[in-house]
Amino acid sequence: MTCRFFDRRDLSFQLYQLHELEALCRWPRFAEHNRETFDSVLDLATDIAVAHFEPHAAKQDEHEPTFDGERVEMIPEVAEALGHYYEAGFGAATQDYEIGGMQLPFLVSVAAKAIFSAANVSTGAYAMLSSGNANVIRNFGSQDQRERFMAPLLEGRFSGTMALTEPQAGSSLSDIRTTATRGDDGIWRLKGQKIFISGGDHELSENIVHLVLCRTAGAPAGVRGLSLFIVPKYLVDADGQLGARNDVALAGLIHKMGYRGTTSTMLSFGEKSGAIGELVGEEGKGLLYMFQMMNEARIGVGVGAVALGYAGYRYALEYARERPQGRHAQDKDPTTAQLPIIEHTDVRRMLLAAKCFAEGGLSLSLYGAKLADTSNYADSESERQRATLLLDLLTPVMKSWPSKYCLEANSLAIQVHGGYGYTREYPVERLYRDNRLNPIHEGTEGIQSLDLLGRKVRMHNGEAYRLMGEEIRRTLDQASPVAALAPEVAALTAALDELDQTTAELTAISDMDVLLQNASLYLDAFGHCVVAWLWLRQGLVADAALDKAVGDDVAFYQGKLSGCRFFMRWELPKMHAQCALLRSHDATCREMQADWF
Amino acid sequence: MTCRFFDRRDLSFQLYQLHELEALCRWPRFAEHNRETFDSVLDLATDIAVAHFEPHAAKQDEHEPTFDGERVEMIPEVAEALGHYYEAGFGAATQDYEIGGMQLPFLVSVAAKAIFSAANVSTGAYAMLSSGNANVIRNFGSQDQRERFMAPLLEGRFSGTMALTEPQAGSSLSDIRTTATRGDDGIWRLKGQKIFISGGDHELSENIVHLVLCRTAGAPAGVRGLSLFIVPKYLVDADGQLGARNDVALAGLIHKMGYRGTTSTMLSFGEKSGAIGELVGEEGKGLLYMFQMMNEARIGVGVGAVALGYAGYRYALEYARERPQGRHAQDKDPTTAQLPIIEHTDVRRMLLAAKCFAEGGLSLSLYGAKLADTSNYADSESERQRATLLLDLLTPVMKSWPSKYCLEANSLAIQVHGGYGYTREYPVERLYRDNRLNPIHEGTEGIQSLDLLGRKVRMHNGEAYRLMGEEIRRTLDQASPVAALAPEVAALTAALDELDQTTAELTAISDMDVLLQNASLYLDAFGHCVVAWLWLRQGLVADAALDKAVGDDVAFYQGKLSGCRFFMRWELPKMHAQCALLRSHDATCREMQADWF
Repeated sequence: MTCRFFDRRDLSFQLYQLHELEALCRWPRFAEHNRETFDSVLDLATDIAVAHFEPHAAKQDEHEPTFDGERVEMIPEVAEALGHYYEAGFGAATQDYEIGGMQLPFLVSVAAKAIFSAANVSTGAYAMLSSGNANVIRNFGSQDQRERFMAPLLEGRFSGTMALTEPQAGSSLSDIRTTATRGDDGIWRLKGQKIFISGGDHELSENIVHLVLCRTAGAPAGVRGLSLFIVPKYLVDADGQLGARNDVALAGLIHKMGYRGTTSTMLSFGEKSGAIGELVGEEGKGLLYMFQMMNEARIGVGVGAVALGYAGYRYALEYARERPQGRHAQDKDPTTAQLPIIEHTDVRRMLLAAKCFAEGGLSLSLYGAKLADTSNYADSESERQRATLLLDLLTPVMKSWPSKYCLEANSLAIQVHGGYGYTREYPVERLYRDNRLNPIHEGTEGIQSLDLLGRKVRMHNGEAYRLMGEEIRRTLDQASPVAALAPEVAALTAALDELDQTTAELTAISDMDVLLQNASLYLDAFGHCVVAWLWLRQGLVADAALDKAVGDDVAFYQGKLSGCRFFMRWELPKMHAQCALLRSHDATCREMQADWF
Repeated sequence: MTCRFFDRRDLSFQLYQLHELEALCRWPRFAEHNRETFDSVLDLATDIAVAHFEPHAAKQDEHEPTFDGERVEMIPEVAEALGHYYEAGFGAATQDYEIGGMQLPFLVSVAAKAIFSAANVSTGAYAMLSSGNANVIRNFGSQDQRERFMAPLLEGRFSGTMALTEPQAGSSLSDIRTTATRGDDGIWRLKGQKIFISGGDHELSENIVHLVLCRTAGAPAGVRGLSLFIVPKYLVDADGQLGARNDVALAGLIHKMGYRGTTSTMLSFGEKSGAIGELVGEEGKGLLYMFQMMNEARIGVGVGAVALGYAGYRYALEYARERPQGRHAQDKDPTTAQLPIIEHTDVRRMLLAAKCFAEGGLSLSLYGAKLADTSNYADSESERQRATLLLDLLTPVMKSWPSKYCLEANSLAIQVHGGYGYTREYPVERLYRDNRLNPIHEGTEGIQSLDLLGRKVRMHNGEAYRLMGEEIRRTLDQASPVAALAPEVAALTAALDELDQTTAELTAISDMDVLLQNASLYLDAFGHCVVAWLWLRQGLVADAALDKAVGDDVAFYQGKLSGCRFFMRWELPKMHAQCALLRSHDATCREMQADWF
């Protein structure tokens, strides 16, 4: 089947040539896998995405879920698509063989997620939420909880949510008010309101497992008082059988600009007698547990943003090759045939930028996924520790960079289509609307910038940041003998030096409000350095492969080299103005007063 | 009435203190006007916009016009709003007294348009199209055509369209195929398809006047073969009475991402016997005439983009002042009350950027409007010529800069709202969708960049560009003694020097494909210089006024100075990387091959 929204050739390049996926098979965890098993999984994902995910994406956007006061209704294709997804085993792709999983590297599952999300991010979201939910229960739940909840979550019989946000507590989780009280019967009952809960109600599964962050009665104020509870829509007995409806009510659906197929809900817990919940792990550690899910969700948001940008880029590329319009500036004879718009330099500029954002974002997501695998399964303790630090450092970047730049790729995809791109006849406007969510949820761009500059680059005395620099310098060393890449090596060297100097100057500041005053610039500059590094690595691989390449591969590698060049010349230099501003400790924003606006 | 979507205080500052509107009253054309008449017009515009335009904006977006094969239906509030608009005389705001106009400066009408568009751009669009249409007939139509069409267009009994685009001819107007043939009866009959015709059908007026760009039978290929025709929906006899339905059929409505209240249509001309048209002016001069409407429309698109960004900024500002969330980085005691989010530096950063884009864009639109007034009505020929050149030069910038940066203001407005901003409960997501059209229609961003670098900066041996530099340097001279603005003067001086150097190097290139290869960067850098200049002028006025200011004015002027500072430090420096790239004659995009993607 033809896949219009993804480029499997690029994915293979990134997985095997760039990120050396096959090398992961040297670890016992993945010993039974090889390129053949990986490819068959990705072929299957592509087939299901093309046949069952993409075809209803536009219909789902036009017919968003509705709530009649009793049930949430949505188009039937969503359940059908998820049926194929679970039947093929994607729900348990990374899980242990012994619980029915495929024990695939996270790296492969992220690649598959990118394909599903590019096809239809709204339908895919239900599965991603359930998978994150299952992982929390696996890691922090009791043996009993794991036995009752994990299998149904992985098989799609149950689905999952993460219920954190409340009307008065979005970015500020310390202000959560939903409260769990333990009765004399030893049972925890919850009361409170949650909002923006994705997948919070629907009829896609037999049950919905809410992981609810709340305060236990009498707990201290702030995040130390937060605990995590399993609160199912239908109670689950000791044998895993479904019982009575729990006291969780859908207070309403939220109508969004995009991502319309995924229900976003307001949930009322405990309007009657209290919603019965099961404590996960220990009291007061709720945020710690939730952060595991949140970190996974942040990587997932980044992958979703990449997928949407990637799909937009692919559709725009197809359109630009087929749509005739205009002639070259030097050749205005109106009797000649019009050129396909890809022949116009400005259209190529837009496509190159979109390519750099989409393929660069994919590279970033896959790199992060490989770090997750390495941190969990590498043989050596030191390798695991190194990967853990790098993953911690890069999580805010993996979440926010694609959310910003792959959204920009979607905007460029519209622009390439001209007036047609603004209509609902073409998918690019929907992808743009879908992607606008990603800079907001799972921690806004502002929150990510505080995390990066306020915590991650400073943790362990800057050890993670130092390791990242080592990685980049290793690539620069490898690339420096390559004459074709000399300008690109020079550009990245200058950028890294600038970032190092900026980081050193900023992290010397002790006043947190001053340190963080322009953190958004730092996040942006840092992200561009990391993605530039990944583009240099792509350029390096392409340059080495070009000599022996034949057929379509020649053009493919030329494209990678052009992408590398474009990113280094058109994008990366933007970071110098940002670093100059950071180093000047500009206080314009901090000193601005509310009543001056 | 409270106006949430516009700041009249800022508008007064810009009109009277910055652009010296009252000085226009020294010319005979505006001799009967004064600040009082201007303010009463703007008060009336605000009242109508608040009472009749804004209230149905969300409903109109959710219930877009429908076509049942016979008639276009839309919510009744649109016609009601336009009734108030025309009743108040806005349809003829700038027209001569003798034909029932108010003989207002274009500058005032642009300010009014900004208010209406900020309230509801979709409803406003019908009126703007009719007004542009009337102006073409006034300037190029026969006496007879003026008498039959102008009054009804200005009074709202007729409405107007500009019908240029065809499925195969969007940016490339030389490929228009619709053809007019003159019968033995001396009557012109048109056959052809037009697409994306805004306001192309509806029941808001008794008649719709299409200005159709087409080819006359036997005319040469290309734009020299194009002529302009009046093609009314209902024929208009010699006395101006409506006759039979003309052979113009609505082939379908186009469903858009935003701007949903304005019908976008596919029109079939001459499916039966041919659509009867009246030639405007001379054969073969259609594009010349249409460019007058297009130039006005380009200014109008810029104003619309400003208005949408401005409204988003005002809503975000209101939200940021009211929404409590989080605490300062140094003060994390969870028992204290949460702060309004405007107290967070990163939120102020977003609001400052949105303010700079919205208020800077408004300044640009108003400056352009004043140039139009000056080019038409100034006493001295040299003053008129100078203004004409500057207006020609700046038209692509006035169209494209707000389309890009005020859209960014809309994105920032969503981001300030967090999750709520992504929902359809708040207006900011709609404004963002509406504004995404503006970089596309009336000449894409790419087309504007070719116009600026390929034509405008080179015309008359660079005379217009030289005049622009003179204007900027005059402000720099005025500002250089002001100590508080020294860093801003230095920043703009450096930017202008860089732009001058870049312009000189580029315009020395004779190969058009090479000259124009990175024109989008030039447009962006040029636009930022111009807006930075307008911000310096705002800073200069504010600095001078601050000494004597009392009450709320103190904060207002401080805000202007902060806006000036922010733009110079955070935005303007981006142009240096762009100019460096332009000066390196980077050929990455031009050399990219279609099959390398």
